[in-house]
Amino acid sequence: MPRSDEHQNEYCPPSEERLAWLTGFAGSAGVAVVLEQEASIFVDGRYTVQVTEQVDTAAIKPRHLVNEPPEKWLEAVLKPGARLGYDPRLQSMAEVDRLRAACERAGATLVAVSSNPIDAIWTDRPAPPLGSVVLHDVALAGEGVESKLQRLQARLAELKADAVFTNDAHAVAWAFNIRGADVGHTPLPLSFALFPREGQPTLFIDGRKLSNAIRDHLSQIGEVMEPSRLDAVLAQTAKGKTVRLDPSMVVERFAQVIHNAGGVIQKGADPIALLRAVKNEAERAGTRAAHIRDGAAFVRFLHWFAEAVPKGQETEISVAEALESFRSETGVLKDLSFPSISAAGPNAAIPHYRVSTASNLPLTQGFYLIDSGAQYVDGTTDITRTLTVGETTPLMRDRYTRVLKGHIAIARARFPKGASGAQLDSFARRALWDIGTDFDHGTGHGVGSYLSVHEGPQRISKLGTTPLEPGMILSNEPGYYRAGEFGIRIENLVIVEEAEIPGAERPMFAFETITLAPIETAPIEIGLLTADEIAWLDAYHAHVFQTLESLVGRAPRAWLEKATAPIG
Amino acid sequence: MPRSDEHQNEYCPPSEERLAWLTGFAGSAGVAVVLEQEASIFVDGRYTVQVTEQVDTAAIKPRHLVNEPPEKWLEAVLKPGARLGYDPRLQSMAEVDRLRAACERAGATLVAVSSNPIDAIWTDRPAPPLGSVVLHDVALAGEGVESKLQRLQARLAELKADAVFTNDAHAVAWAFNIRGADVGHTPLPLSFALFPREGQPTLFIDGRKLSNAIRDHLSQIGEVMEPSRLDAVLAQTAKGKTVRLDPSMVVERFAQVIHNAGGVIQKGADPIALLRAVKNEAERAGTRAAHIRDGAAFVRFLHWFAEAVPKGQETEISVAEALESFRSETGVLKDLSFPSISAAGPNAAIPHYRVSTASNLPLTQGFYLIDSGAQYVDGTTDITRTLTVGETTPLMRDRYTRVLKGHIAIARARFPKGASGAQLDSFARRALWDIGTDFDHGTGHGVGSYLSVHEGPQRISKLGTTPLEPGMILSNEPGYYRAGEFGIRIENLVIVEEAEIPGAERPMFAFETITLAPIETAPIEIGLLTADEIAWLDAYHAHVFQTLESLVGRAPRAWLEKATAPIG
Repeated sequence: MPRSDEHQNEYCPPSEERLAWLTGFAGSAGVAVVLEQEASIFVDGRYTVQVTEQVDTAAIKPRHLVNEPPEKWLEAVLKPGARLGYDPRLQSMAEVDRLRAACERAGATLVAVSSNPIDAIWTDRPAPPLGSVVLHDVALAGEGVESKLQRLQARLAELKADAVFTNDAHAVAWAFNIRGADVGHTPLPLSFALFPREGQPTLFIDGRKLSNAIRDHLSQIGEVMEPSRLDAVLAQTAKGKTVRLDPSMVVERFAQVIHNAGGVIQKGADPIALLRAVKNEAERAGTRAAHIRDGAAFVRFLHWFAEAVPKGQETEISVAEALESFRSETGVLKDLSFPSISAAGPNAAIPHYRVSTASNLPLTQGFYLIDSGAQYVDGTTDITRTLTVGETTPLMRDRYTRVLKGHIAIARARFPKGASGAQLDSFARRALWDIGTDFDHGTGHGVGSYLSVHEGPQRISKLGTTPLEPGMILSNEPGYYRAGEFGIRIENLVIVEEAEIPGAERPMFAFETITLAPIETAPIEIGLLTADEIAWLDAYHAHVFQTLESLVGRAPRAWLEKATAPIG
Repeated sequence: MPRSDEHQNEYCPPSEERLAWLTGFAGSAGVAVVLEQEASIFVDGRYTVQVTEQVDTAAIKPRHLVNEPPEKWLEAVLKPGARLGYDPRLQSMAEVDRLRAACERAGATLVAVSSNPIDAIWTDRPAPPLGSVVLHDVALAGEGVESKLQRLQARLAELKADAVFTNDAHAVAWAFNIRGADVGHTPLPLSFALFPREGQPTLFIDGRKLSNAIRDHLSQIGEVMEPSRLDAVLAQTAKGKTVRLDPSMVVERFAQVIHNAGGVIQKGADPIALLRAVKNEAERAGTRAAHIRDGAAFVRFLHWFAEAVPKGQETEISVAEALESFRSETGVLKDLSFPSISAAGPNAAIPHYRVSTASNLPLTQGFYLIDSGAQYVDGTTDITRTLTVGETTPLMRDRYTRVLKGHIAIARARFPKGASGAQLDSFARRALWDIGTDFDHGTGHGVGSYLSVHEGPQRISKLGTTPLEPGMILSNEPGYYRAGEFGIRIENLVIVEEAEIPGAERPMFAFETITLAPIETAPIEIGLLTADEIAWLDAYHAHVFQTLESLVGRAPRAWLEKATAPIG
């Protein structure tokens, strides 16, 4: 039992929280395995404490998802001849391949269940969400559905695929220029779609999410059907045809339907993901506007922070709430783009910390880390700042400055067309490597356009081999974490743009930083920065001030002027 | 018809030069495809000029190996039902997979030939080489054969493989602590070996390469057989067993033998390659000694160069011969480790240029690039210097300094345990990327210990995902190439070592530069170097001088003192 639904969502609706219902564990990632005599739950390093608080560990033993993955454990405990059940609606083709291999090594068999045994006994299971679908304005999308489908079909022709099927609601939202309200933090219309190389696509969505007007609109683009008809249509279409499926995203069940119908499965990256990742001029303009709006709210928050926190009454929860209220005051906030990470002192050493009333620390002395973002109809934001409360130690300032050096190295990077995020990732680490340390996450993830704050295939990570292209949005967020003491992360979003370099000998790209908010200067050890790095920071701050000074109000403006003064 | 033999050698013996015999093309890489009505030869960018000079292009059409690979071309020209023959003794499993897929896409069939049709008509084919095998002194190897086999067998147990088979003569040489004399530049004993997880290995080698003493010695380690018995023994051993084969190295024929015998093929990287890549203390000491010896010869060469070249009579060929003579004067030179790249002016813009009497340029004005190396019984060297003749332009000095910055960035890099060469490669490029240029080869390749100057799996390249481990030897050789004008490359060899960083928070590695020779300082634009970069160069030069001053003779010593003077 994974924590995932048939759309492989990062944020699941309550009706899909089977893992939490079964085990009590409410984290965002995990897998439970229930055998006849024992049960285990596998969670990653973020959740090793939480799992022991939420799960009856006498009945379900917690294990480490990374150090002892379920496949390894199953290989050891499954007896020859054993049959391991799984729900093919909830697990991706790639996950099932791994499970099947583990079973084979143990001499056991992996068996798809025809109905989920949890659903059979979960009597008070909430109904699936029925969030209303809205059109995403083509002025914001920058491209009509017809044009998007033409480009997708041209790509399918190149790939020699007759169709692509997806259960990724982000792909559906992008292709049909729609947004929904089925899950938190991301405006997803939970749905499925089949895109043939020739002819109209089919959208599979619960009709109760569609107004008559929207239904009529969508029916002009393609066929609109209930998800209950998916298997039949998929089987009919797939017969004798080549259907492209992304094994890391498409759940096993649909691969089986296509296979059983005599279709040929072409495994490969979802072509929609790459089309979606490259934002057009309208999307870039939208996200820039969203970042100006969000930056103004963030500056008002920072001004409030500077006034309120020294009074000594603020906590992780109260500060996160204050930030949300400044964003709400924009009047156009759709949602936070993810639950804010509001972390004081040692809590910030946990990169994905999520505050609870039990963990809530007061902001007293040292670093406070706030990683947060917003959804606006024109763009998605994601920003992290590490703020100072009272004094910092030389060690804290050294590490802060090295994280900043890494951030600036990415912000200033120029790279040839064809280069991937994997080729840039180490620039963010070098100043930490120099003194014998590092951070254990990627430098940056892709970001959507009023869609998920985490999207692929673009990323800045040693695993990010997709070439970066102008229009891709990524985060730039190196960090440093010292267990039990403090955590540092500095994050801006960037857009890949063509670089204009006089005398350049080949096409070059660079990042445009779009996040607008001062970077805390108090903990900077200026002696560790090069002249170029100081120049970048001063220029960034000047740009932040010029862009936001008229948008924040008088007192925040005065604070902003000081916060963005040159350090050089 | 590839240019490769059944050992997939970089340097083939004359008996295996089928491609040259068939087409006239004498380059080091290429593929010919002969159809009923037409024939093509595919070569890479190094050879596009040479191929038109050596091949009858009316009969055999030259094509670009990278831009129009044979698989792509075959897919387009093969007619449905066509049968494409290939020699399974000459092509790797991976190559055959690609060819087979291309044939399938064209509706054609790939057919293994039982005997090579060229061999049938090549009436004056030279005999295969019978170079005498010598033992590689265990004092230089640093580990006895028994210990090596134990470690290999432990690795096979981890991999759950019953045996590994290899046609890689480097692997055989390493495992049995032997060297041979069958090909140029690399002391390879052309042979095959089968290593079972339990029991003795079998070495398949022509008995005429073995003295009685060596044969007796090897017979104590394992079975020694003629290669003619390979198929039978392989089939007998493989039945019902799992045999690991490296698809990029093992030729298809042996996979077929194992498959037909009922063996299970485990495809994966050759475990011997990684064991061989990590040099032990004796091997590291040996290669350091070889580099001191080679460095002294190189300094005498540089001193000669400084005196002779301004007289105006030297050419690419005469300079390369001079360098070889200084190496020969050591009295212990076994061979050059590859044909020297001796390139003046525009010839140096071709990264793999090989001088011929037709191309031989005089050394007049500008940059001269010499990339060369030596084989000594204690180590293999590879060094590139870009030397100045007369004046250089500001553009040349700018690019030279940026290549040097890249070289120093790799030399000074510190990186955490687990990091790969892919994570370091961009450090060598950043100063070039900053102005909109790059170089189109990897930054570094692995180097053997009195074995091949090009060995894997370690490399510094965006494709180099093998984690670097202490004891691996690599080249550090960024470059810059300006077609028709000039070329720059600065290359030293380095050893991965544990880094001692006070206060380090995790295990860190760094490179020890082992190549010892001054780096030309005349073209350096000091203003482009940071203080740290200048400090590295001055320290390197001080180390070169201290190590070599007593070994080069009086006049070269005086020259060396000036050449290694601080620039800061």
